[in-house]
Amino acid sequence: MSDYPSILLENAVNAFSSLPGLGRKTALRLVLHLLRQPEAEVDKFAGALTQLRKNVRYCRICHNLSDTEVCPICHSTRRDRHIVCVVENVRDVMSIENTGQYNGLYHVLGGVISPMDGIGPKDLEIDSLVERIGPELVKEVILALPATMEGDTTNFYIWRRLQPTGVSVSQIARGVAVGNELEYTDEITLGRSILNRTEFTG
Amino acid sequence: MSDYPSILLENAVNAFSSLPGLGRKTALRLVLHLLRQPEAEVDKFAGALTQLRKNVRYCRICHNLSDTEVCPICHSTRRDRHIVCVVENVRDVMSIENTGQYNGLYHVLGGVISPMDGIGPKDLEIDSLVERIGPELVKEVILALPATMEGDTTNFYIWRRLQPTGVSVSQIARGVAVGNELEYTDEITLGRSILNRTEFTG
Repeated sequence: MSDYPSILLENAVNAFSSLPGLGRKTALRLVLHLLRQPEAEVDKFAGALTQLRKNVRYCRICHNLSDTEVCPICHSTRRDRHIVCVVENVRDVMSIENTGQYNGLYHVLGGVISPMDGIGPKDLEIDSLVERIGPELVKEVILALPATMEGDTTNFYIWRRLQPTGVSVSQIARGVAVGNELEYTDEITLGRSILNRTEFTG
Repeated sequence: MSDYPSILLENAVNAFSSLPGLGRKTALRLVLHLLRQPEAEVDKFAGALTQLRKNVRYCRICHNLSDTEVCPICHSTRRDRHIVCVVENVRDVMSIENTGQYNGLYHVLGGVISPMDGIGPKDLEIDSLVERIGPELVKEVILALPATMEGDTTNFYIWRRLQPTGVSVSQIARGVAVGNELEYTDEITLGRSILNRTEFTG
C-alpha cells in the first residue's frame, strides 16, 4: 500500500514536489491547505497554470514574456526607443522595472553563454539582438548581465557582435552595494570599485 | 502598468503566493519553472489539483482522507480492529504509518480543542469517536495528540467522554527523543521522563 491514504492526494503531492526547492513534506502541507479552500479557489489556481502555459508567449521583439505578440513595453509610446537593456531573463526585467530608473526597451537573452552547461550563443537571443540594432534607431545598448564569468563572457561576445553596427555599448556599474560596509565587501568588487570610481559631484 | 509583463503570469504568481509560506519571489520562480515544462506536464499538474479537490473525501468511519467512502485502513482485513489511535490530522496518520509500529485503526479529529481559536469539541470528530466505540469491538483507544496544552485538554475531554463505554484509554509515551542529549532536553520533558520511567528489560 502507498504511504498516502489517497491516490489523488499522492498525485497532488507528487505534482508539487516536482517543483524546484519543494520537498515532499512542504508539498503535502500545501496540498492539505488547498484541500481546505473552496473548490472554486482550487479550480482558479489550476486554471491560472493551464492558461499561463497555453497562452503566454514571448514578445516577438524583446523576447520578454507577454500576453500579446508584442509586449506592453515594446508597444509603449512612452518608452525611450533609443536604448536597449540586455538582460538574462524575465526576472531581471522585473527587477530593473521595479527600480523605476529605466525608461528604455529590453532584450531578454534567455540565458548566458555557458560552455559547461552546453549553452552557446546560438541557444540565446543574440542574433535577434544584432538584427534589432540595424533597422531600429537604437543609439545605446546597456549590458545588464550577471557579474559572473558567464555574464562577462556573454558581455564580451555581444560587444564584439555589435561592433559593426556602431552602436554605443555600456555595462551596468559594479561596485560596493548601497548600504554595505567596505570591510565586508569582497576584494575583487572593492578593487574594481576603486578602478571604476566616478566623479563626486556633491 | 502592472509589475508583471503578462497578466497570465501575474495570475499564476498570485495563485502560488496565496499558499502558506510562499512569497512572491518563490512563486515567480516556481511559475517560470512550470513555463519551461511541456504543456502536458502543466496540464497534469493542474489536473491533479482539481481532481483532488473535487473527488477526495473523508472516510466515513475514521475521517482520514480517502478516495473511497471507507478508507483502505478501515477497509483492510489485516488491521487489528480492537485498537483505535486518535490523532489530530491526516499528516499524523501518515507519520505513524511510516513508523511501521502500529497495525490498528485510526480516528482523525480534524484538530484539537482550542478555545483561543474558537475550536470546541463540537467542531471536532469527537462525537463520532464515542459512537464508534459502542457498536464496534474496540478494546483500546490510544491518544496520540500533540504534547501541547490544547492536546492535553483534548486528551482529558476525550478520556471523560469515553469513561461510560468502559474502553481502555492510553496515551503515547512522552520523554527524551531518541538520539537527544539530556542536557539539551527541556526541563518539563526531562522531569516527566523520570516520573514516567519504564522497566528496563535489558
